[in-house]
Amino acid sequence: MTEGEFPVHRCARCPSRGAPITSTPFDARHIGPAEAERAKMLAETGHGSLDSLVEAAVPSAIRATRDLDLPAAATEEEATAELRALAALNRPMTQMIGLGYSDTVTPGVIRRNVLENPAWYTAYTPYQPEISQGRLEALLNFQTMVADLTGLATANASLLDESTAVAEAMTLMRRASKAKSNVVVLDAECLPQTIAVVRTRAAALGIDVQVRDLLTGLPEEFFGMVVQYPGASGVLRGRGFYHAVSEAAKAAGALYTVAADLLALTLITSPGEFGADVAAGSTQRFGVPLGYGGPHAGYMAVRAGLERSLPGRLVGVSVDADGNSAYRLALQTREQHIRREKATSNICTAQVLPAVLAAMYAVYHGPDGLQAIANRVHGLAAGLADALRAGGVEVVHESFFDTVVAHVPGRAAEVHEAAREAGINLGHVDADHVRVACDEVTRPDTIAKVLRAFGVDAKWTVATALPNGIVRESGFMGHEVFSTHRSETAMLRYLRRLSDQDYALDRGMIPLGSCTMKLNATTEMEPISWREFAGIHPFAPAEDAQGYHVLVEQLSGWLAEVTGYDRVSLQPNAGSQGELAGLLAIRGYHHANGQPERDVCLIPSSAHGTNAASAVLAGMRVVVVKCTDEGNVDLADLQAKVDAHRETLAAIMVTYPSTHGVYEHGIERLAKIVHDGGGQVYVDGANLNALLGLAKPGEFGGDVSHLNLHKTFCIPHGGGGPGVGPVAVRAHLAPYLPNHPLLDQAGPATGVGPISGAPYGSASILPISWAYVRMMGGPGLTTATKVAVLAANYVASRLSPHFPVLYTGQDGLVAHECILDLRGITKETGVTVDDVAKRLIDYGFHAPTMSFPVAGTLMVEPTESEDLGEIDRFIAAMIAIRGEIDQVAAGRWTAETSPLRGAPHTAEALVGEWDADYDRELAVYPAGVSRKNKYWPPVRRIDGARGDRNLVCSCPPLNAYEG
Amino acid sequence: MTEGEFPVHRCARCPSRGAPITSTPFDARHIGPAEAERAKMLAETGHGSLDSLVEAAVPSAIRATRDLDLPAAATEEEATAELRALAALNRPMTQMIGLGYSDTVTPGVIRRNVLENPAWYTAYTPYQPEISQGRLEALLNFQTMVADLTGLATANASLLDESTAVAEAMTLMRRASKAKSNVVVLDAECLPQTIAVVRTRAAALGIDVQVRDLLTGLPEEFFGMVVQYPGASGVLRGRGFYHAVSEAAKAAGALYTVAADLLALTLITSPGEFGADVAAGSTQRFGVPLGYGGPHAGYMAVRAGLERSLPGRLVGVSVDADGNSAYRLALQTREQHIRREKATSNICTAQVLPAVLAAMYAVYHGPDGLQAIANRVHGLAAGLADALRAGGVEVVHESFFDTVVAHVPGRAAEVHEAAREAGINLGHVDADHVRVACDEVTRPDTIAKVLRAFGVDAKWTVATALPNGIVRESGFMGHEVFSTHRSETAMLRYLRRLSDQDYALDRGMIPLGSCTMKLNATTEMEPISWREFAGIHPFAPAEDAQGYHVLVEQLSGWLAEVTGYDRVSLQPNAGSQGELAGLLAIRGYHHANGQPERDVCLIPSSAHGTNAASAVLAGMRVVVVKCTDEGNVDLADLQAKVDAHRETLAAIMVTYPSTHGVYEHGIERLAKIVHDGGGQVYVDGANLNALLGLAKPGEFGGDVSHLNLHKTFCIPHGGGGPGVGPVAVRAHLAPYLPNHPLLDQAGPATGVGPISGAPYGSASILPISWAYVRMMGGPGLTTATKVAVLAANYVASRLSPHFPVLYTGQDGLVAHECILDLRGITKETGVTVDDVAKRLIDYGFHAPTMSFPVAGTLMVEPTESEDLGEIDRFIAAMIAIRGEIDQVAAGRWTAETSPLRGAPHTAEALVGEWDADYDRELAVYPAGVSRKNKYWPPVRRIDGARGDRNLVCSCPPLNAYEG
Repeated sequence: MTEGEFPVHRCARCPSRGAPITSTPFDARHIGPAEAERAKMLAETGHGSLDSLVEAAVPSAIRATRDLDLPAAATEEEATAELRALAALNRPMTQMIGLGYSDTVTPGVIRRNVLENPAWYTAYTPYQPEISQGRLEALLNFQTMVADLTGLATANASLLDESTAVAEAMTLMRRASKAKSNVVVLDAECLPQTIAVVRTRAAALGIDVQVRDLLTGLPEEFFGMVVQYPGASGVLRGRGFYHAVSEAAKAAGALYTVAADLLALTLITSPGEFGADVAAGSTQRFGVPLGYGGPHAGYMAVRAGLERSLPGRLVGVSVDADGNSAYRLALQTREQHIRREKATSNICTAQVLPAVLAAMYAVYHGPDGLQAIANRVHGLAAGLADALRAGGVEVVHESFFDTVVAHVPGRAAEVHEAAREAGINLGHVDADHVRVACDEVTRPDTIAKVLRAFGVDAKWTVATALPNGIVRESGFMGHEVFSTHRSETAMLRYLRRLSDQDYALDRGMIPLGSCTMKLNATTEMEPISWREFAGIHPFAPAEDAQGYHVLVEQLSGWLAEVTGYDRVSLQPNAGSQGELAGLLAIRGYHHANGQPERDVCLIPSSAHGTNAASAVLAGMRVVVVKCTDEGNVDLADLQAKVDAHRETLAAIMVTYPSTHGVYEHGIERLAKIVHDGGGQVYVDGANLNALLGLAKPGEFGGDVSHLNLHKTFCIPHGGGGPGVGPVAVRAHLAPYLPNHPLLDQAGPATGVGPISGAPYGSASILPISWAYVRMMGGPGLTTATKVAVLAANYVASRLSPHFPVLYTGQDGLVAHECILDLRGITKETGVTVDDVAKRLIDYGFHAPTMSFPVAGTLMVEPTESEDLGEIDRFIAAMIAIRGEIDQVAAGRWTAETSPLRGAPHTAEALVGEWDADYDRELAVYPAGVSRKNKYWPPVRRIDGARGDRNLVCSCPPLNAYEG
Repeated sequence: MTEGEFPVHRCARCPSRGAPITSTPFDARHIGPAEAERAKMLAETGHGSLDSLVEAAVPSAIRATRDLDLPAAATEEEATAELRALAALNRPMTQMIGLGYSDTVTPGVIRRNVLENPAWYTAYTPYQPEISQGRLEALLNFQTMVADLTGLATANASLLDESTAVAEAMTLMRRASKAKSNVVVLDAECLPQTIAVVRTRAAALGIDVQVRDLLTGLPEEFFGMVVQYPGASGVLRGRGFYHAVSEAAKAAGALYTVAADLLALTLITSPGEFGADVAAGSTQRFGVPLGYGGPHAGYMAVRAGLERSLPGRLVGVSVDADGNSAYRLALQTREQHIRREKATSNICTAQVLPAVLAAMYAVYHGPDGLQAIANRVHGLAAGLADALRAGGVEVVHESFFDTVVAHVPGRAAEVHEAAREAGINLGHVDADHVRVACDEVTRPDTIAKVLRAFGVDAKWTVATALPNGIVRESGFMGHEVFSTHRSETAMLRYLRRLSDQDYALDRGMIPLGSCTMKLNATTEMEPISWREFAGIHPFAPAEDAQGYHVLVEQLSGWLAEVTGYDRVSLQPNAGSQGELAGLLAIRGYHHANGQPERDVCLIPSSAHGTNAASAVLAGMRVVVVKCTDEGNVDLADLQAKVDAHRETLAAIMVTYPSTHGVYEHGIERLAKIVHDGGGQVYVDGANLNALLGLAKPGEFGGDVSHLNLHKTFCIPHGGGGPGVGPVAVRAHLAPYLPNHPLLDQAGPATGVGPISGAPYGSASILPISWAYVRMMGGPGLTTATKVAVLAANYVASRLSPHFPVLYTGQDGLVAHECILDLRGITKETGVTVDDVAKRLIDYGFHAPTMSFPVAGTLMVEPTESEDLGEIDRFIAAMIAIRGEIDQVAAGRWTAETSPLRGAPHTAEALVGEWDADYDRELAVYPAGVSRKNKYWPPVRRIDGARGDRNLVCSCPPLNAYEG
């Protein structure tokens, strides 16, 4: 049958199409405004069609000259079927490879009610703490769990993976150490991927990484040391060893980091008790699927005194305006987006959703349950070792937790082969050694199969192999939260209670400029739960991961097509890591060209703080370029800066459309100036949602970009992660993309080394973006971009009579977001962006982005997924708020006594004496707010400064909570 | 390895076990109170151990003499693996069999956020409407959709399936018809399973079922007629036909029912426009998976004037105490539990969850979207027909919607075989005819494959085959709800908004006596989403359903073991249907014994109303047996009634433990009296949660029981269904169990006919109960029973100082529930059970069962799944409420001015003038209620009577809603 013979849709939402379709096209579900709504919105903007609007908004010089070359859009059912076929190419074996990744059981109640629950996964980073108390509590549980298990004072709320966590520990140690050395010592027992990631990072920073057998001696001088505990080979060294290395570090004026396995720590002495300054590692084995390497939550904990040096996000306890205990992110002033080029880490997106999973796993099992699991795992491993020995196989280490290395001279390949036939992957060491790592899913019959693979026919029984003196005697996780949610019913209700406190996309719009909070469709999300994607070890033989490899190849290709680049690496597991990878590629390129002196990175003043932080981590010097009054990069100043640094110019990092939400016309000129100066052009892809199908950074001057799959490509924000930050480059930079020591095909042999612990970073969530592109197709993606631009211009047009729109491009149009300027209002009335943001909560909204890129403004990005009803509801709320501000101006209230400052208002606030200068109804049911379906914030405005002064970063005792 | 070698759990929740376990045992998650909590609860009851308590409570005469013979408990992971293996035995082919079951696409957003969301599936029947507004709105959408599509005035909120819906239509027609005849005429085009179910029902009621080719004539007299539209063969007859049969029915004084396909009704004239009195059918193809036959929501709609005769649940609009629009179940006084032996239907549990799915499918697609799907399906079917004709194959009917019957003399088997090889099941007609039914998932390449199976090589294109004159011209689903939730984002938020209005098990305890609201574990629930269970047509070849058959056999065997019966039929798809099947088995037995005159069914006065209604539907006469003051069956009165009806005694229906929540000691004596009188003993299994592992009805006198898998065996209530009501019998009744005309192995050849449309009723939810039994094992089930009894006695003991506990058994103990007697309180203070029930909402609880079995009381069943914390929270709330009642008694308030009568209090009520005699805080935050996590009811107390007087059963116009 030919096209056109099949009946086309006549549904009002679905554009008439020639291709046979078996259900509603996905783009009709993804894009909020239907045809009729688009027409209304266009009328407001004064344009007759989407194309007319886009032609006016986007500089013609950069417009793509042809349609996107992508496969025709699949329906949701077709995409699911294709993903099923890809999944079927993966082979989830019994994974006993170890090296920091262990199979684990995600309790069903947690999988269904967190991982598969939009209330959790569509939430944004908890920058608005009043509407994020649920996940902040979950993250506080995470911090408490990590701090307790590691025996250290303060833990953060997740890093990107174990390897990058250790790399962060390295830079923390360098900052905190008084030693003059630039040497960091890594235990030879460190995980190989950790060593490689640390080397990648260290190379750019001029740090000398020395990998040592710590038993045989340390260098004279070093600023930091990392010990793997237990070692990569499984080994647990004696109590004396850990004390001795700790003393040696102290003697050198160095800091001491322990990369520790949290499950093992339920049985063995904690790093804190051995004098560690820092502990770092992974929480993956606490219920987070292997997922071919990620996403998982890395962790870091530090001793007292180092908490203000911790990288990443930290949840702390403070109080709200009514004096009730409340959570919020602590010490934000030390983060990259504040400190810019003075930042010490570029981490931004963390791994909130995996961290919540791990924390809930701990809450559900409790300290005794975790110990029971650890005992089981250990008992099996020790029993295996005994039986191997009894069967004549030498076991290398006497003491270990869950991992056994067997010495089988010349027979390793044969053992691996036999194990594979039994459905088991063992760990490759060399031709004479085999590693066997036990985990939560190891069963007695697994051990029996492993023994048979070794040709051992011994009877076996569980045993123990913990060295004397390091059996843990200290308690942990004594807080009640770890003993009160232990039945499935109790856990279900706890998860519901927490999520009910939060505002996520499943309640309403989150109009965050530059963060692109769009639909995370169920069809995109479902495959990540499938065993065939979830059950693959990152170091499994390549033949087990063929489905992943095809998916990676297809998705990389599509991303290259939509961005106009030649090559894409999916390894970076956050935007920050993509930035770093992109800058390291530039660095590698200049070095290869014999120009290592090129280390100046130009960054416009309007740039996101992470850009500067990444440049510093890439070993570059930041030089700021001014912006014009119109918000564009000042090309004259750029030329001057290029001239001033002609010999040392490495790159410029520029966001397009600009962080001001405008399609700058000078972008091609800008690229030419930098190229002429010998620099590379890095186009930050944060705003790619304004470009897909319309223009390609790789074609209008970019040499490299990172993308945020968790923005433009529908990976949910997860409450603050996971993200994926692929880096896309033109061909000349491709040799300097990340690679991986454990998988050749993960990157070029000439690459800069790994940027993440796993070859494909957060591989298990790539199906989300794959499905999005597959179901939208080129026309769908292009329409989405156009509607996103339409929505932003509609909002700008409707709101500009009430709030000045700060920057616009040609024809007065914005791109996909718009900046509302409140500075005049604040000056005149004292009402701040904070007041408006909090008041929006009373109206049932998440605030727009606050004070970025310009202090005193709000940046609104409605995205294409919001329908006109929701957009109009937001506009009405903003207009009503403007009305309230006007009443402050008119003297009815002062800013302090207005509902704006009183916001947000809780239900609890309604019951006591009411002494506000406005009535209860105005407080909680201002115009347009539903009586039946109101979102009630659980706390009032939170005092952040007070929490920073009195830092509390683990669960407060229960009596701190009311009711 | 032998048992004991494997490390046992040392987790505080997990009893030490010898068997190797790879994760926390499931019973430690299912059962709420851990060991330490159980000890506290036992102390309150004055017993030193669970066994001591149970020995005191349960009559020793009925105690089971041996442990349950069930497989050892599997862990959650093991049970999942076993279910995966069973699923792999099923073969979800492309299903083109038709006969009332069509494959369909469940939109992902609806699957994830309804079918897989505890907020929807753990809700109870909306008898407390103030905390059920979300699902009541969803059901009102369902009613509106059905009423609009059928062109009739009023639709109910679901029946059990199409076949039983038609059977209900038959009895409705008999009630409403003025014709004296006992003849009902069924169109020969009726679905075969419908004809069979109608015959089963009719036989017991003395109705003469005549199946006729309606084109060739009707009997002289008849009270009702059923036309299938389109016919089972797919045929659409001309406009004249439908008008003619309508006229003929009216001429005979008969009523006219159309069994209609709702998807077809988007394209063809509605039954109402042809003068139908009743429409009935299935909503399965609106997004509800095939599931090997169920559960799906049947529907019924009636013309104006018949609404008060509608069986089943009906949602109506009324107002709350503040005058706001609110939903609640309408006309409940006509339901079986009220009318008992005067009931006209025994339907009780409906199909709420499938009805919500179907309604949301309609909301998501809208009228235009549904029409687009219908057009596509029709175009393919018509194109197939044209191509068959072009290829020389005769097509039997010229006009049809989605189903084509081809005449292939002698070649049918060959065509079926070829289609099977292409992965397609076609419909078996006879050796010369093949039926091909198209549906939403049919694709152009499916049609091409079907043509090849017929050996036809014709080119084809879409076509049309609707007869002149019946193309639908009337609009439908014009309400805004069907046009405002059409993007995935909008639908997601609508689903969240609705579920947020409701109280379900994911928020807190639902202590409903006799309804056993226990944990519905995720591991039990997940498999029902699997394609291998969801994608099987009920009339697929048996070889495609081997996984189901093994599962059915195992589960039947386990249920026989735990109940002490010999044989179990899983076909009844609700408790009411189980009752009917059980009584029909008794009826069949008496008839086979030559004693058709045995038609008296004794029913104790305390029985659930459904018992009596079922007896009437089974053609029996109800004779009520008195209860003693202690609440037990009055054995003297029983003896007298048996003596009085010795020749005609058919059975007694008795609940055990009694509906009074007590283990009656006379049960064996009771059984002997009835048996001696020639009667059979029917033990209603509603309270089986008090028996599992302790006693077996089949051993202490029962001949037959029905079970409620949605009570004792963890199928969630789904907001009011689906349920499964297996019937279990001793061997002598086994020949009279249900069977099925389309699957021999579904029941005995001597059976009474089908009781449900599908051979195994609601097959797709059987994995839930299978998993429960598999993961609990005999010891786990037994412990669960003991803890359930402990919890009830703990509640009784703690609350008895505050509310008299009405009935107890020996040693003052109750069974698994207890009745709190408020009659004295009401008499003294005017505070009613209703007041207490509604006040419990303010305290964050669902009310216990109200006024059953005794008016003026509350029946509390905590179940084993509630931990001590939640039980104590409930007890504290009840004691606080008692304190409020005491203040009424003391004169602080009258009943009318008390917070009890004011309850429930909404947040909205807080904002206006407050003129209550108590303050806001007491209203909404009485003692112990969390400030942070309060459940807010969306409406205040609803005026039910007013809604019944002004019956509105479809969506009110939007302006009826506030905000």
